[in-house]
Amino acid sequence: MDWQAIMDQWSLLINIGIILLVAIAVRLGLKLAAKRIVKSIVSGVKIPRRSQKIEKIVNDQRLTQRTKTIASVLDNVATWVIAITALVMILSEFGVNVGALIAVSTILGAAIGFGSQSLVKDILAGIFIVFEDQYGVGDWVDLDGASGEVERVGLRITELRDIHGALWFIRNGEILRVGNSSQEWAKALLDLPFAYDNDVDEVQSIIIQVAKELETSEKFGKDITEEVEIQGMMHFSGEQFVIRVALKTLPNRQWAVSRELRRRLKNAFDANGITLLQASKINLAK
Amino acid sequence: MDWQAIMDQWSLLINIGIILLVAIAVRLGLKLAAKRIVKSIVSGVKIPRRSQKIEKIVNDQRLTQRTKTIASVLDNVATWVIAITALVMILSEFGVNVGALIAVSTILGAAIGFGSQSLVKDILAGIFIVFEDQYGVGDWVDLDGASGEVERVGLRITELRDIHGALWFIRNGEILRVGNSSQEWAKALLDLPFAYDNDVDEVQSIIIQVAKELETSEKFGKDITEEVEIQGMMHFSGEQFVIRVALKTLPNRQWAVSRELRRRLKNAFDANGITLLQASKINLAK
Amino acid sequence: MDWQAIMDQWSLLINIGIILLVAIAVRLGLKLAAKRIVKSIVSGVKIPRRSQKIEKIVNDQRLTQRTKTIASVLDNVATWVIAITALVMILSEFGVNVGALIAVSTILGAAIGFGSQSLVKDILAGIFIVFEDQYGVGDWVDLDGASGEVERVGLRITELRDIHGALWFIRNGEILRVGNSSQEWAKALLDLPFAYDNDVDEVQSIIIQVAKELETSEKFGKDITEEVEIQGMMHFSGEQFVIRVALKTLPNRQWAVSRELRRRLKNAFDANGITLLQASKINLAK
Amino acid sequence: MDWQAIMDQWSLLINIGIILLVAIAVRLGLKLAAKRIVKSIVSGVKIPRRSQKIEKIVNDQRLTQRTKTIASVLDNVATWVIAITALVMILSEFGVNVGALIAVSTILGAAIGFGSQSLVKDILAGIFIVFEDQYGVGDWVDLDGASGEVERVGLRITELRDIHGALWFIRNGEILRVGNSSQEWAKALLDLPFAYDNDVDEVQSIIIQVAKELETSEKFGKDITEEVEIQGMMHFSGEQFVIRVALKTLPNRQWAVSRELRRRLKNAFDANGITLLQASKINLAK
Amino acid sequence: MDWQAIMDQWSLLINIGIILLVAIAVRLGLKLAAKRIVKSIVSGVKIPRRSQKIEKIVNDQRLTQRTKTIASVLDNVATWVIAITALVMILSEFGVNVGALIAVSTILGAAIGFGSQSLVKDILAGIFIVFEDQYGVGDWVDLDGASGEVERVGLRITELRDIHGALWFIRNGEILRVGNSSQEWAKALLDLPFAYDNDVDEVQSIIIQVAKELETSEKFGKDITEEVEIQGMMHFSGEQFVIRVALKTLPNRQWAVSRELRRRLKNAFDANGITLLQASKINLAK
Amino acid sequence: MDWQAIMDQWSLLINIGIILLVAIAVRLGLKLAAKRIVKSIVSGVKIPRRSQKIEKIVNDQRLTQRTKTIASVLDNVATWVIAITALVMILSEFGVNVGALIAVSTILGAAIGFGSQSLVKDILAGIFIVFEDQYGVGDWVDLDGASGEVERVGLRITELRDIHGALWFIRNGEILRVGNSSQEWAKALLDLPFAYDNDVDEVQSIIIQVAKELETSEKFGKDITEEVEIQGMMHFSGEQFVIRVALKTLPNRQWAVSRELRRRLKNAFDANGITLLQASKINLAK
Amino acid sequence: MDWQAIMDQWSLLINIGIILLVAIAVRLGLKLAAKRIVKSIVSGVKIPRRSQKIEKIVNDQRLTQRTKTIASVLDNVATWVIAITALVMILSEFGVNVGALIAVSTILGAAIGFGSQSLVKDILAGIFIVFEDQYGVGDWVDLDGASGEVERVGLRITELRDIHGALWFIRNGEILRVGNSSQEWAKALLDLPFAYDNDVDEVQSIIIQVAKELETSEKFGKDITEEVEIQGMMHFSGEQFVIRVALKTLPNRQWAVSRELRRRLKNAFDANGITLLQASKINLAK
Repeated sequence: MDWQAIMDQWSLLINIGIILLVAIAVRLGLKLAAKRIVKSIVSGVKIPRRSQKIEKIVNDQRLTQRTKTIASVLDNVATWVIAITALVMILSEFGVNVGALIAVSTILGAAIGFGSQSLVKDILAGIFIVFEDQYGVGDWVDLDGASGEVERVGLRITELRDIHGALWFIRNGEILRVGNSSQEWAKALLDLPFAYDNDVDEVQSIIIQVAKELETSEKFGKDITEEVEIQGMMHFSGEQFVIRVALKTLPNRQWAVSRELRRRLKNAFDANGITLLQASKINLAK
Repeated sequence: MDWQAIMDQWSLLINIGIILLVAIAVRLGLKLAAKRIVKSIVSGVKIPRRSQKIEKIVNDQRLTQRTKTIASVLDNVATWVIAITALVMILSEFGVNVGALIAVSTILGAAIGFGSQSLVKDILAGIFIVFEDQYGVGDWVDLDGASGEVERVGLRITELRDIHGALWFIRNGEILRVGNSSQEWAKALLDLPFAYDNDVDEVQSIIIQVAKELETSEKFGKDITEEVEIQGMMHFSGEQFVIRVALKTLPNRQWAVSRELRRRLKNAFDANGITLLQASKINLAK
Repeated sequence: MDWQAIMDQWSLLINIGIILLVAIAVRLGLKLAAKRIVKSIVSGVKIPRRSQKIEKIVNDQRLTQRTKTIASVLDNVATWVIAITALVMILSEFGVNVGALIAVSTILGAAIGFGSQSLVKDILAGIFIVFEDQYGVGDWVDLDGASGEVERVGLRITELRDIHGALWFIRNGEILRVGNSSQEWAKALLDLPFAYDNDVDEVQSIIIQVAKELETSEKFGKDITEEVEIQGMMHFSGEQFVIRVALKTLPNRQWAVSRELRRRLKNAFDANGITLLQASKINLAK
Repeated sequence: MDWQAIMDQWSLLINIGIILLVAIAVRLGLKLAAKRIVKSIVSGVKIPRRSQKIEKIVNDQRLTQRTKTIASVLDNVATWVIAITALVMILSEFGVNVGALIAVSTILGAAIGFGSQSLVKDILAGIFIVFEDQYGVGDWVDLDGASGEVERVGLRITELRDIHGALWFIRNGEILRVGNSSQEWAKALLDLPFAYDNDVDEVQSIIIQVAKELETSEKFGKDITEEVEIQGMMHFSGEQFVIRVALKTLPNRQWAVSRELRRRLKNAFDANGITLLQASKINLAK
Repeated sequence: MDWQAIMDQWSLLINIGIILLVAIAVRLGLKLAAKRIVKSIVSGVKIPRRSQKIEKIVNDQRLTQRTKTIASVLDNVATWVIAITALVMILSEFGVNVGALIAVSTILGAAIGFGSQSLVKDILAGIFIVFEDQYGVGDWVDLDGASGEVERVGLRITELRDIHGALWFIRNGEILRVGNSSQEWAKALLDLPFAYDNDVDEVQSIIIQVAKELETSEKFGKDITEEVEIQGMMHFSGEQFVIRVALKTLPNRQWAVSRELRRRLKNAFDANGITLLQASKINLAK
Repeated sequence: MDWQAIMDQWSLLINIGIILLVAIAVRLGLKLAAKRIVKSIVSGVKIPRRSQKIEKIVNDQRLTQRTKTIASVLDNVATWVIAITALVMILSEFGVNVGALIAVSTILGAAIGFGSQSLVKDILAGIFIVFEDQYGVGDWVDLDGASGEVERVGLRITELRDIHGALWFIRNGEILRVGNSSQEWAKALLDLPFAYDNDVDEVQSIIIQVAKELETSEKFGKDITEEVEIQGMMHFSGEQFVIRVALKTLPNRQWAVSRELRRRLKNAFDANGITLLQASKINLAK
Repeated sequence: MDWQAIMDQWSLLINIGIILLVAIAVRLGLKLAAKRIVKSIVSGVKIPRRSQKIEKIVNDQRLTQRTKTIASVLDNVATWVIAITALVMILSEFGVNVGALIAVSTILGAAIGFGSQSLVKDILAGIFIVFEDQYGVGDWVDLDGASGEVERVGLRITELRDIHGALWFIRNGEILRVGNSSQEWAKALLDLPFAYDNDVDEVQSIIIQVAKELETSEKFGKDITEEVEIQGMMHFSGEQFVIRVALKTLPNRQWAVSRELRRRLKNAFDANGITLLQASKINLAK
């Protein structure tokens, strides 16, 4: 049989048919691929490395929903793109010179493409945040400028609640570095500036004693996962010397532990006549 | 029947007809699509998560109006683009070599496209601000540099009124992070620097007593949604110790509550002989 | 009739004719479009939201003139572009291979296009500033670095006069955010730092009394549009407490009102023995 | 007559002829256009809005000369570009496949184009600076970082002389905002910090009296164009209050006037027992 | 035999066959290449320059796993790309005009390419970090903003644990400079500010004596690799002079050594009546 | 004669001949052009506006040498580019389809072009620095961050020696603004802060007297080109008043003159009982 | 002989042969070129301007090794690129339509090209650093943020060791300006703030005397290459005057010399009753 000859005669109709078939096939293939990606994102989310189970599930539902929303938007875009492409190809089969059409749409496409590249960037970044489990709902994170508790991890934006209750919307593609304070363990770290004439060894023994009491206290004992570590003298001048104390804690408990440690230390110092540096400058982290 | 043969003979007229038909069809299709997008933006706006109903409706009307204005501008642009494309294609059907024309218009298009990409970016960002409900009219937001009450959310720009009454116009595409202080709840957060020789427990009991009175007061009681939380000692040195107090409030009420709390605390401290740190540096947030 | 046959024979002459006709038509069409845009910019300017009528009209004339200047420049550019395109197309009709010509001009065009994209950006931004009425002549604006009274709003640049009389030329495309202090209303906002041992209620009643006198004064009464608002205690430490006072005024009158209020408050405080914080640091806004 | 047939036979020679003719025509056309642009830049410069006539003329000559230099450089570039383009087209007429040639030159052109785009940007910005008369020789300008007296306005760079006599070369394309202190009028603006216990009204009357004497003085009277304006109390605390005084002057005379005003005020305050704030921090503008 | 003739007849089938064969070959070739690259990365990792052996091996397993994950993702992408390309080429063999298809996919590809270029950049940077052995697990590094102990070196991101226990995720492509404090050796460097009236030579001899004792101490002696170096007087004014002391140590031991040295110096200065400058400003590095 | 017929027959050989001829011609033409540019750069350098003759000549030789080095590098690049282009064109004449070759080399070329665009930018900037005579060897310049004496002006980098003897290598394309302190004249400018209770007129007369002595001194008299200028009172507060003194000098002599002037003024003030402000803050410029 | 006819018949085989031959030739040519470049880099390195011979040679070996490593990587890339290009060209000779293939690979190539352009930039910058001898192993350099002793100069990165022993890896393409403190000579530069009531001449004579002793001392005499220079009074106020002293030294010896000079000056001042300003602020450079 001479396929080529038959095709030459019926080529117009056959070509149009092929175009339509391929268009529909690609359309379906993309839909399946999108489904699989959504599925793997969702299931990837279902293996939490952290313990906030209940909130997590709520969040997963929201994430699934949002992922589906964006997937459906992309689906719409894909449908339009495939339909228009097929249309242009069919036009071209009818012998219409489509050069001008392609040139014009290239310019339009470039303009829109430039404008939407940050969208692509945000979504890619969002996918990696979920895949690499950089943070999840309930984590306390520092996103290079804004820091707070994660309320939602979306494909395009992350939502944080800071200590004043303000809700921050941050585009995933703009996040260059993430500092997550709720991963596996944390440290309550205090730099204590003592007046110069205190005795270093006495000071250290008091700190250790207070820390040990805290480790065995009912309320905070379970938060502390390792023995106190006195890192020693960080600095000294004619007025003061600075001792650094560190307590390893469960994640998200470092702030409560360090506040309680401060309270107990103050009482112990007062009781033992230890004097601190007369400096009034304050830097308040959370 | 030999379609191909007929088409060869009549191809010029038929091709022109096809071009015109497709141009008109695309034109109509775009109009419908634009309408649907406008509709979904407007209806998306109609499900407010917040309670400022009346202002919202006013704003919706304005938003609808503005959305329509931009839609009509884009519509005009589309009409021109389609008309010119069709014209060039018809020219090309008459056998005119349109390579030069396309090359020239590509350069022009690129120049204009580069210039207008920030326009595309602004509008895309505006659509996401509305869809994701990042903020609405009446919210107090911090847009990375300018902060104030939102007066209008447009497709291209957002308008804020700051505390001095200045109106800020900010392009949506330049907003990298949004801090919204009017979402669901807020916190009145006070860092109180006490002189070193006060008694920590006495101080804390006074603060709790004052806060409890405030929670039951007629004017501010309904604004406070949770019991006072003493977060404990944030810092201490030889001169002072700092206690942080937090009161969860309704959104936008945190400033009034914290001002009233400060007033009552001062009176209570004076009455109880509590002394504060002698520091005169001032940081004034709203 | 066999159109195609006739065209093949006469195609050269006909094609040249078509090219020239279309070139002239596009030229006229662009001229009309430019006229309409100029007209709509000018008429858009004619519906002022503010009241500085006389200066406005003067400015409109200048704006119209400048808009026309730029329109005529663009017109020249367009004429050249169309002429050259037509020339190349005619050359190509004569059978000259114009590939090299197009390639070379593409490179040149790209270089010039890159260089002039900021020009396009500036003009687009200028059109939006006028359309969205972000500011007009006589407004006091803060353009992200330079602030002053607007003297001229051009398509490419905005001219400001700052408080020292320096004239600032700012490219519209470089303006990312606009703070307009002359829109609808303004606020005279004072943060008053009192010595710690004053009585809060006495202080507040004196402020209210002074503000009420100012509201009924002949010279400033008409500038004040709302009753004085004492926003309460913004801050307190062992040395001081800060009271914020706000007076809503007509736009551009906030500075005069706050200066007069300061003068009257000082006299009232002196008369009533109220003492202020001994801080000498000064921040002077307008 | 059958033009097409004749052309087919002689097409090679005729095409080469056409190419050469068009090349020469375009070459001449560009030369004329460049001349006209140079002329209009120069004549545009000849209508000065300011009065420094003599220096201006000197400068015009230099500007004209420089403009011509750059025009001649561009002319050379254009000649080369046209010659090479014509050569390639002629090669292509001889049947040589010039695809590779064009591809290679496109890459080279792109590399050079990228590198030279800042050149195009600088020259475009320079043209606008001259056309819009943003500044001229003898003006005192602030070019976003460097400020001084303009010595030369070139197409590519602007030359400034700062107060230490250093000559600054600034590329026009890098100038985002221009602050011109020598346009139409200027203001001598003084913020005077008085000790708290002075009498505001007495202070103001002394200032007015001193300013009035200055307005009628022989040496400075002609520099002052408007009556003194006391803008009132800019700031007050427990230690001081600040009065702002403004004198409208001729451009470039604001510094001399404010220095003389300071000298006279000091003498008057000493004579009247007015005391100033004991602050030693200094900010010295020109 | 006339290959060309046979091919003309059977060209469609043969061409399709060739396309499929080449597609499969390229697919396999890429798989092999990817395997070799993964292997060389992993084996490159296996020659550690540092001594933290056990953690290293754990990390290698993780790195291998992650490298394989990314390799498999890239593999999937490659499979899709090759399949689609082959499909389009086969379509084109059937005589379908694929110009439109290619144009559309070019735009889409460009948009996605722009968005994913930072991904490519991150992975390339990651490969170089591993190849050049810039840092490994357990090193203490300063990545231009965030500093801490490296927990994981991935192809796309590096994970750090800072001193507060926060885990930082940093994209490799954003790391412009790396400061590694755990390479080969380190220095404990102290700048000691003495009160002006101390004797320089006495001070230096005490420092040397204390350092020598430290060098021979049981706990820290093995950490110190070179004799103490007194670099001399870094600064002096009427109030103080500053002596710099340096001790070369094993990597990661510099902080412990300098803390112990400080403690011993303080005791020695107290015992010998050496007084330090009364300055209370503190800068605390690790 | 029928040129076209002959060419059809011999076209392959003739075309290859033409390609080779043109390639050689272009090669020679570029060599000549490069020579001319090098010559004009060198000769342009030979008309110095400044007087440091001897160093200049030495520098010219180095510059010439370096310019030639770069010219020879560019020459090599050009030879390779022309050779490869000719090769591809000859291949294409033999009927080889070179589309793939061109596509691949386009990508490679783009990657290299992107990477080398900063090289092009640096060299272009270097040419303009030489042409516009922005600075020469021996000038003291401020290149936006690094300042010092120019040691070498290369096509790609400028070398500076700062006051500590460090040699700075700065890429010409990164220099946005140049401050040249060695052009035509300079100013020794002193801001003298006097204690408040000095007599302004007495102070000024002493300054003038000291300056006049300096102008007639043997060592510094020839450096001073204009009479001293007392610019008057720059600032006054309750503690001090500031007088600015300016002396016009030869370029590069301003620092020595101001240092000598300071020394003489101190002695004169001591002798006349003039007291200066008790401020200890120091800003040291060269 | 009719070459063209023969070629038409055998064109497929001949073309494939030509393609393979040219591919192999280009492959060999590139290898030779790469070898020559590596050689010239290595030999360029062998003419050191500095004296640290032994370390240098070690470093040269490493540099050579690394250069060869990168050359071999590039060689691999080139082999792949040439092989694929040849493959596609052969496919195209068999009549396969390779348009789709080229389009797809263009997109992929663009994405990879974008990602790897910083790699190209780094390597180009590295080549210029070596060619221009900006710094070598053992130099103390300031690379715009990180400063230290150069440990390795690679094609892609430079490795520095800072004063704390941290090893910095800096990508060559990110180095905008290099400050090299080890080139030819250096300066020990001291700004000495004396109390106001010292005698300037006495102070200067003591400084000169101390410096002269240092110049003739055994340990430091050979480091000092020029006589001491007293640059005179840099600043004076009511509290102090500042004298600048400069000693030209061998490169890398400036810090040791200035430390010794400080020590000797302190002793001399103490012995002569010279008092310094009571300022405690410290700025410590190396």
